[in-house]
Amino acid sequence: MDQDLDDFRDLARTFCEKEIKPNVDKYIANKHVDRDLWNKAGEVGLLCLSIPEEYGGGGGTFAHEAILIEEQARATDSSWGVSLHNGIVAHYILAYGTEEQKLHWLPKMASGEVVGAIAMTEPGTGSDLQNVTTRAIREGDEYVVNGTKIFITNGSQADVVVTVVKTNPEQAASGISLVIVPTDTPGFSRGKVLDKIGMKGQDTSELIYEDVRIPVANLLGAEEGQGFVQLMEQLPQERLLVAVANVAAMEMCFDETLRYVHERHAFNRPIWAFQNTKFKMAEIATEARVARSFLDECIGLHLDRELDIPTVAMVKLWCSERAQKVADKCLQLHGGYGYMNEYPIARAWADLRVSQIYAGTSEIMKEIISRSLAAPA
Amino acid sequence: MDQDLDDFRDLARTFCEKEIKPNVDKYIANKHVDRDLWNKAGEVGLLCLSIPEEYGGGGGTFAHEAILIEEQARATDSSWGVSLHNGIVAHYILAYGTEEQKLHWLPKMASGEVVGAIAMTEPGTGSDLQNVTTRAIREGDEYVVNGTKIFITNGSQADVVVTVVKTNPEQAASGISLVIVPTDTPGFSRGKVLDKIGMKGQDTSELIYEDVRIPVANLLGAEEGQGFVQLMEQLPQERLLVAVANVAAMEMCFDETLRYVHERHAFNRPIWAFQNTKFKMAEIATEARVARSFLDECIGLHLDRELDIPTVAMVKLWCSERAQKVADKCLQLHGGYGYMNEYPIARAWADLRVSQIYAGTSEIMKEIISRSLAAPA
Amino acid sequence: MDQDLDDFRDLARTFCEKEIKPNVDKYIANKHVDRDLWNKAGEVGLLCLSIPEEYGGGGGTFAHEAILIEEQARATDSSWGVSLHNGIVAHYILAYGTEEQKLHWLPKMASGEVVGAIAMTEPGTGSDLQNVTTRAIREGDEYVVNGTKIFITNGSQADVVVTVVKTNPEQAASGISLVIVPTDTPGFSRGKVLDKIGMKGQDTSELIYEDVRIPVANLLGAEEGQGFVQLMEQLPQERLLVAVANVAAMEMCFDETLRYVHERHAFNRPIWAFQNTKFKMAEIATEARVARSFLDECIGLHLDRELDIPTVAMVKLWCSERAQKVADKCLQLHGGYGYMNEYPIARAWADLRVSQIYAGTSEIMKEIISRSLAAPA
Amino acid sequence: MDQDLDDFRDLARTFCEKEIKPNVDKYIANKHVDRDLWNKAGEVGLLCLSIPEEYGGGGGTFAHEAILIEEQARATDSSWGVSLHNGIVAHYILAYGTEEQKLHWLPKMASGEVVGAIAMTEPGTGSDLQNVTTRAIREGDEYVVNGTKIFITNGSQADVVVTVVKTNPEQAASGISLVIVPTDTPGFSRGKVLDKIGMKGQDTSELIYEDVRIPVANLLGAEEGQGFVQLMEQLPQERLLVAVANVAAMEMCFDETLRYVHERHAFNRPIWAFQNTKFKMAEIATEARVARSFLDECIGLHLDRELDIPTVAMVKLWCSERAQKVADKCLQLHGGYGYMNEYPIARAWADLRVSQIYAGTSEIMKEIISRSLAAPA
Repeated sequence: MDQDLDDFRDLARTFCEKEIKPNVDKYIANKHVDRDLWNKAGEVGLLCLSIPEEYGGGGGTFAHEAILIEEQARATDSSWGVSLHNGIVAHYILAYGTEEQKLHWLPKMASGEVVGAIAMTEPGTGSDLQNVTTRAIREGDEYVVNGTKIFITNGSQADVVVTVVKTNPEQAASGISLVIVPTDTPGFSRGKVLDKIGMKGQDTSELIYEDVRIPVANLLGAEEGQGFVQLMEQLPQERLLVAVANVAAMEMCFDETLRYVHERHAFNRPIWAFQNTKFKMAEIATEARVARSFLDECIGLHLDRELDIPTVAMVKLWCSERAQKVADKCLQLHGGYGYMNEYPIARAWADLRVSQIYAGTSEIMKEIISRSLAAPA
Repeated sequence: MDQDLDDFRDLARTFCEKEIKPNVDKYIANKHVDRDLWNKAGEVGLLCLSIPEEYGGGGGTFAHEAILIEEQARATDSSWGVSLHNGIVAHYILAYGTEEQKLHWLPKMASGEVVGAIAMTEPGTGSDLQNVTTRAIREGDEYVVNGTKIFITNGSQADVVVTVVKTNPEQAASGISLVIVPTDTPGFSRGKVLDKIGMKGQDTSELIYEDVRIPVANLLGAEEGQGFVQLMEQLPQERLLVAVANVAAMEMCFDETLRYVHERHAFNRPIWAFQNTKFKMAEIATEARVARSFLDECIGLHLDRELDIPTVAMVKLWCSERAQKVADKCLQLHGGYGYMNEYPIARAWADLRVSQIYAGTSEIMKEIISRSLAAPA
Repeated sequence: MDQDLDDFRDLARTFCEKEIKPNVDKYIANKHVDRDLWNKAGEVGLLCLSIPEEYGGGGGTFAHEAILIEEQARATDSSWGVSLHNGIVAHYILAYGTEEQKLHWLPKMASGEVVGAIAMTEPGTGSDLQNVTTRAIREGDEYVVNGTKIFITNGSQADVVVTVVKTNPEQAASGISLVIVPTDTPGFSRGKVLDKIGMKGQDTSELIYEDVRIPVANLLGAEEGQGFVQLMEQLPQERLLVAVANVAAMEMCFDETLRYVHERHAFNRPIWAFQNTKFKMAEIATEARVARSFLDECIGLHLDRELDIPTVAMVKLWCSERAQKVADKCLQLHGGYGYMNEYPIARAWADLRVSQIYAGTSEIMKEIISRSLAAPA
Repeated sequence: MDQDLDDFRDLARTFCEKEIKPNVDKYIANKHVDRDLWNKAGEVGLLCLSIPEEYGGGGGTFAHEAILIEEQARATDSSWGVSLHNGIVAHYILAYGTEEQKLHWLPKMASGEVVGAIAMTEPGTGSDLQNVTTRAIREGDEYVVNGTKIFITNGSQADVVVTVVKTNPEQAASGISLVIVPTDTPGFSRGKVLDKIGMKGQDTSELIYEDVRIPVANLLGAEEGQGFVQLMEQLPQERLLVAVANVAAMEMCFDETLRYVHERHAFNRPIWAFQNTKFKMAEIATEARVARSFLDECIGLHLDRELDIPTVAMVKLWCSERAQKVADKCLQLHGGYGYMNEYPIARAWADLRVSQIYAGTSEIMKEIISRSLAAPA
């Protein structure tokens, strides 16, 4: 098993070094990765890593997903929305799809023929999923979908969008369903790629649904109204993926900065020679080490299906906040260059800020954690 | 006097609202303000505010400079490098220029015909001015300037650049001089506008000097070797300008966020209704109020010429760090929209980060402060 | 005026140096100051500083109160509850007392014959004054007081206790009154001095009222039910006094630590020689300077009767939190000695912690501030 | 093995609940635990837990030491210096003692007949062990020990003190040796128990050595000059013990506070009902969980003899700093009661502060960590 993971890391590292690292600037300029990056990744087996082989996937585990994220971070890339495609979208289909849906979509997602997205957030709702207003109203054998989604990762490249809708707008949580929307369906359109502080190469977009008609067979789950439960079941893995990316980013920032402070001179000495530098680097090393320890424990629990929702909220809350602090200290040690986007540390600082917001804000994480803190007997 | 400042604030506010605010997006897209913004500002009297009227200036004080910065911040602009032009470059010429130099440059800077920049930092030096390597070697009646400067505000639009050089490369501080370099001098060129995390509309650039020949009359000061002292004398005002911008930004962020949390709803309530929101806003209001108090005391001392170097370092250190923290809390209260550049809070968060770096990093500020802490008797 | 304050500072400093500093250890061992300290202070004119001379007071202002607090801090004393006696208890009587009450109590408080206390908090209520349960039920010309108060400064030495009671227990705020309770009244007793983390020389106590009968003439104010308004009016000055003490403590801690790091050696160098020490001291100096600036602005506003309630909440919140942080950094720079009570820094660290709690917790301060943050128009 | 640990936890918990918890106030009043607590603990097998059975010990591992510390914390005790006796002093003798020394001292330490201490720090040195000045000069078959040690845990009750001396005062690290000093040796005396901020029941003392003559056989180690290496080898376990105590304290503080906020009411609601309380408790729960994760990883590494020195420094640095922050938040949630020593949270807050200082300050930890951060290849 360990050997398998080591081999997989080699594969992922080679791919990221060769196919991604040289193209990061281009992705950022274009606000999206090259479309064929998905196909290349599919060819070498980097898509749908933890989807069973029978559906074209890699047959791996969450450990494989984590490794790919780490190697992507090491290549200083944040543009490619692969962890969403692999670790989230495909898993909704795997978990709730009919055999037909799985056989239709998963092999294409594994090959890179189809890019996946998931659409939850709306302009008028943030973390409050119960109040989504996008509707899928049944008319005969079809749902007619209307609404607008925002902040959708892979928004401009997605070929299929798992969409959170109200099949019963009268109800709150129990009115929510997930439906599969192919993006070539008439009435579906995309807003322009959003102009964000960071994550500049990621094609985060607004999606517009105007009388989008999809077959009722595109419902995910045996019946309507399962969406909220499905989201609650899948959000933990999504949050753990964020934490994995945060810790990987911390480690990348640490490595970049350690090299910088040893190389860069000021006042006729390497920056490293200053006690302030040493102390900051010691703090950063400690932060990264502590976060790694907690993350690895959580990954282990997740692999054993023992990771509970409050603990996921903790690891997401913790890693997203600490990663930003680490990036901030690293940036400062870079001086003026830390503010220049050509330096990975600058991009990391701006990229990481969204982690305290998406997949549930820090405030939502605290709510979730607090709910588990019952009065002691 | 107070009436004069109030009238001036009206003028500045009207100008910023009308001429700047509608164009912020354009400035950012272009990576510089419109060139004629300088001329328009000159026409209404917004340039060289604290330069005597005899040199075409406004005859005002630092209080006028501060007001313009505040109104620019209120208009959510960080693109226009006017405080550098007004409060720094013009003051080097005023303080150390010959009558001829002053009469030549200041009226043009006041009208907007000439945009000013100052070039200190080099690729190989950060805050360490004693080790600049750009040289101005005297040959007859000319200096021949060679070197490279980096991170230069107004870099692409500047018509004149006060340049820190070594007239005697053998010496450290005492070898430093300032020279006036018109940017149409042969051998002077500009690198492309730097790609920064924030301050996106500001044309921060690299400047290249290759055998740039300027008359010896372009030396600032009575003799060579005065540059380091001149920098030490002027840096306090530069740092105070940074603090003014930081506090203005804090107040803008607070205002934007207070409106947002009252307007925006989540979970069927205005965000404001949550205790967490109230407490964060109370903290932000307090932070901004405390910084304002200290800044205003420092401005008062500066107007009375009693602001010493360690106290300037304190106000720069303090305001730059706290402004970032305030912007960070404000961003978080905006949720996903806080990460979108169309919101001023997002841009402010990214803009402000440079304040802990330029005009002397936080580390340099601490060094300066510590030097004033002699052992008690 | 300034000369008057300077002279007063000399007086206060001499008294604190001579009468208090040598006895701090004794006060702590005894858990109260010497009773005759009050009389000595009264003799030299250090009591009731800001009470008009016609009532035996010093005829000074809040500025005098602030100076005495600063000089007490400089003498590293936190035992003597003089600022409560002077700045709070006497002012309730001055503001709301009848001429008879004022002439009876204030001259004795000014001479030190009578020590004052004020009793708000109860075991079952913290900052929630509307829910006090101590009752003063009128029977003929008397009130019969029953209840228990806790955390009462000057509790064991007080001769008179302004006591917050419900004269109408059916009502919330409007049922509250203040009554003057001489401590020699039958039925009044004191619990033992509380064992606190710090403020070890201060005789903070529990007070018990069991059928304590006082004349109705001991009501403070023209009629019953004014108590809550009276508290709201006086709490700002109480909170400002806390802030004054906090800033004075910060400055004392800074001075003590600066001397220590210059004198103490480690690894064959003065601790001062380490960059970490210099940076920490620079941060501490800045913190203290910033707090001083805001405090002095607030004192000025208070002297002009322009200090509003949210701003007082800000200065109390700010100074109490930052003083603790300063003390913590100073303690760390002392190494093991910082943990020993013979060092003023150790006592200051433990003393200061209560400032975030008493006179309204930090959470209450945030509530108050937030109430002033109306939605922008 | 797990069953063994569970059984041991039951034993430790029962002992702490029955023998310690009821006596904590007495220990604090006396500034030391009852002398017979050691004997009682020895009787039930709580001393020398990780010393082999052949020397009278429990034959357990570091896991047993950790459990006893956790149970002691749960009983809200910080007075009993058992972890020093068990986990440090006994291990110096085990690791470096001759068979004779081991057979002489360890069984007595296991029974409680002998209490152990270790004396490193001196009044003039803090963390700088190379510069100790206590000397052990050989005269014939004896060492004559002269010097003063400070901050010695178990100082007043110790029957044997492993003492750091210079056997060769001319040399730095290589002149250091450890010697075993029985406290009934003529010339050995103790200063009074030190008055500390916290850890009030712990008999931290000054030790004075005046011509104390001990046999040369009391040297620890085969030859003189091994002391520094011995310290470097044993300090990691000492630091890990501190981290264990810190995390145990965090968990105790969390439990105490969770109960308090559910029980205590303010403004007619349990404190728990406020969002601020919930968010703070969520943060505290997360902090404690993260620290636990890292600590447990380190304990696991230590049991496998794979815990390196920089990682120990990280866990000590981290846990000591975060425990203080946790205690601080918990204290604040207790309001005024948080400042009263009758509440465990108050004592914990004051106790914990020393953890950032002893066994190497946070600054020393950062130095150690930084030394491991070599420039990347």
